[in-house]
Amino acid sequence: MFRKPVSRRDMLRLAGASGVGLLLGGSGAFGIMAATGATKQPASDKPGSPDNVTTGIPDANRYDFYGQHQSGITTPSQNFMCFASFDLTVSDAAGLKSLLQAWTRASASLMAGELLDGQNENLNLPPADTGEAAGLTPSRITITFGAGPSLFDHRFGLAGKKPAGFGDLPPFNGDNLMPEWCGGDLGVQICADDMQVAFHGMRNLIRIARGSAVLRWSQEGFQRSTESDPNKATPRNLMGFKDGTANPSVQDAAMMNEVVWVQPEDGAGWMTGGSYMAVRRIRMRIEVWDRSSLSDQENTFGRYRVSGAPLGSQHEFDRGDMEAKDASGKPVIPMNSHMRVARGDGKMQILRRPYSYSSGMDNTTGQLDAGLFFISYQRSLEKQFIPMQQRLAQIDALNEYIQHIGSATFACFPGVRQGGYIGDTLL
Amino acid sequence: MFRKPVSRRDMLRLAGASGVGLLLGGSGAFGIMAATGATKQPASDKPGSPDNVTTGIPDANRYDFYGQHQSGITTPSQNFMCFASFDLTVSDAAGLKSLLQAWTRASASLMAGELLDGQNENLNLPPADTGEAAGLTPSRITITFGAGPSLFDHRFGLAGKKPAGFGDLPPFNGDNLMPEWCGGDLGVQICADDMQVAFHGMRNLIRIARGSAVLRWSQEGFQRSTESDPNKATPRNLMGFKDGTANPSVQDAAMMNEVVWVQPEDGAGWMTGGSYMAVRRIRMRIEVWDRSSLSDQENTFGRYRVSGAPLGSQHEFDRGDMEAKDASGKPVIPMNSHMRVARGDGKMQILRRPYSYSSGMDNTTGQLDAGLFFISYQRSLEKQFIPMQQRLAQIDALNEYIQHIGSATFACFPGVRQGGYIGDTLL
Repeated sequence: MFRKPVSRRDMLRLAGASGVGLLLGGSGAFGIMAATGATKQPASDKPGSPDNVTTGIPDANRYDFYGQHQSGITTPSQNFMCFASFDLTVSDAAGLKSLLQAWTRASASLMAGELLDGQNENLNLPPADTGEAAGLTPSRITITFGAGPSLFDHRFGLAGKKPAGFGDLPPFNGDNLMPEWCGGDLGVQICADDMQVAFHGMRNLIRIARGSAVLRWSQEGFQRSTESDPNKATPRNLMGFKDGTANPSVQDAAMMNEVVWVQPEDGAGWMTGGSYMAVRRIRMRIEVWDRSSLSDQENTFGRYRVSGAPLGSQHEFDRGDMEAKDASGKPVIPMNSHMRVARGDGKMQILRRPYSYSSGMDNTTGQLDAGLFFISYQRSLEKQFIPMQQRLAQIDALNEYIQHIGSATFACFPGVRQGGYIGDTLL
Repeated sequence: MFRKPVSRRDMLRLAGASGVGLLLGGSGAFGIMAATGATKQPASDKPGSPDNVTTGIPDANRYDFYGQHQSGITTPSQNFMCFASFDLTVSDAAGLKSLLQAWTRASASLMAGELLDGQNENLNLPPADTGEAAGLTPSRITITFGAGPSLFDHRFGLAGKKPAGFGDLPPFNGDNLMPEWCGGDLGVQICADDMQVAFHGMRNLIRIARGSAVLRWSQEGFQRSTESDPNKATPRNLMGFKDGTANPSVQDAAMMNEVVWVQPEDGAGWMTGGSYMAVRRIRMRIEVWDRSSLSDQENTFGRYRVSGAPLGSQHEFDRGDMEAKDASGKPVIPMNSHMRVARGDGKMQILRRPYSYSSGMDNTTGQLDAGLFFISYQRSLEKQFIPMQQRLAQIDALNEYIQHIGSATFACFPGVRQGGYIGDTLL
């Protein structure tokens, strides 16, 4: 009786004067966030250009779904993440395609901050949108899809398209993997500056998948919210150290082509413009860490805790002097320190995009199940992530304080062109 | 070698020009949040006055620890929560007192946004502060402590001080309580606008408790962040409905004395100025809910989903016409609707302060373990929460879609006076 269709966008428009941060949409326009201020400008309905840069009216805290690359990879990290791994219950390519098309439609709406409200008026049907994000901004939500190695088995006729060198990660020294945190036919990383918006995205994708795929595992993650950090500094992990200092700059497009985006010469043409994702659920032995001395902690990372600078250096982004010795002739940056081992010869990089997680108490130990939900993106798992992780697994001093309990890899599709759907280069 | 002690406060001061929201400290100054803007004003070191209102210099996003009442009860809800329930391993009053004194010191620092950095300079000792909140604002963190019924057993000589009528909640119809989500000697609710700041508080309290108490269970919670909500509207739960519309106003001090704060005439003098907390971990059958029609959903709550208005009314805060009938003579607001049953005769209120939770996939069902971490505060569990919950458990239409799987009660102490410690009126 007082019912009218209301979209999240309508609500934004109604609330236009109350001060919403603005973002020039598009994953090509990193960090171009206007100062927070009042605006009466309605959100644009203009679709993004193919390279994912909205050149017209700035939009409210949103990225375009369509573009050359998927968003959520070189997009500056949002505050929160919901990750969902799915196993397909359909068993042919038609079923898979139908799911990916439905997810495409939903993702475009979710990223635009629109209600999935096609059926919203019909009292006799379930609402098309579960409603918990109504009235909220898009909160820079990104939704990133990838295919797990198992997608290339016999079921979908895709065995011939499996990229060379793509598969589950090899066993690493010290792994304590639990099957319930590993693998999946399809992986979906949903990030947003608002936890409820991210959850809403995940929950609706699960819902849409009903009858086509089931949830295999899921994990929520967080970092410090940008609002709480006056310096917008490098976020700290739950060990109290800055995490991501050595990351290549996502604003350096040439670097991203070098490190992250699959190039035509890399083979598996359907992946050109995509990226390979490595996922590791890394539990921290928080109680052991908290009992170790500051000196041990800093030698473990090879960095000062407060500043994040390499040991012996002054500033966080100093490169660090790998040759420096202390008075007793020992390297100032220990040979087995995390930063030294991760760097290796410095020739191979990855793009780290991790989140912290805290999943309550582990009932078997009485300790917090908390740590790092590690995600990285790279052109090649074989050339980039795997050799780095093999080094780390062998000698990283950090291994005393962590345990890898989950693992997955996903071949993240290139971006979707207008009229296309997620994974259409593969199917 | 480039080491200097740095407090979170120092970092704020350094970062003074970058625009930190201001809050007039004190749980008596609800919602007095100045517009976000640049400030060079250093955070005040002046302790709060006894009634918890800082009358001097506005401080950065923080509440005072000391005051008449504990913060985190009538404080406007922050974006995030970490809840921890502890069991004591010390077995006498001296050990309990010592823990509460240590928690008092830590909580005063945490709420001021200071590092627990007494030992920060000593390389040979573990850092006193775990560091993951360094550089972040206090983010309106509040820490609220309460005593569970088991604290009044034989161990601490407190049996004679157990308030009349305080105990575990009685069994309710439909309960499916799991021991791992129930009870505890001490309960701590930590809320903040930043998840990492809240986690940091919980983790350090757990650490400080080592040797005195162990974690019994813990739960993280969230709601939409205020930054994502241009209208600052009533938050929605994971069923998509507004949650908290019927709450009494925390700005109405007389109402809070009536509903929330234990009064001298209530007995158990040590609780005067405190409040009784009811905790219920309520799992939502999300998949069943999502398949129910909009009409069923709205009849279940007795409200419209989009506006939150009572059925038959236009605005969220309309009282609702309980006598209205539809054309067929049926009540417009169904007799078993949640809002109607919760209201009862309208004479008894509680202060609800719930958070949503999402704890990944339940491996036994393959469905999301998500729902509502219900917390309410009241002067009397017997007179307020219990009769309301008994009504709801009998006939609330919502019961088809939820299951209560955790339960706890805590007698939350009055506020701490300068020089005192948490629980000093009891011990």
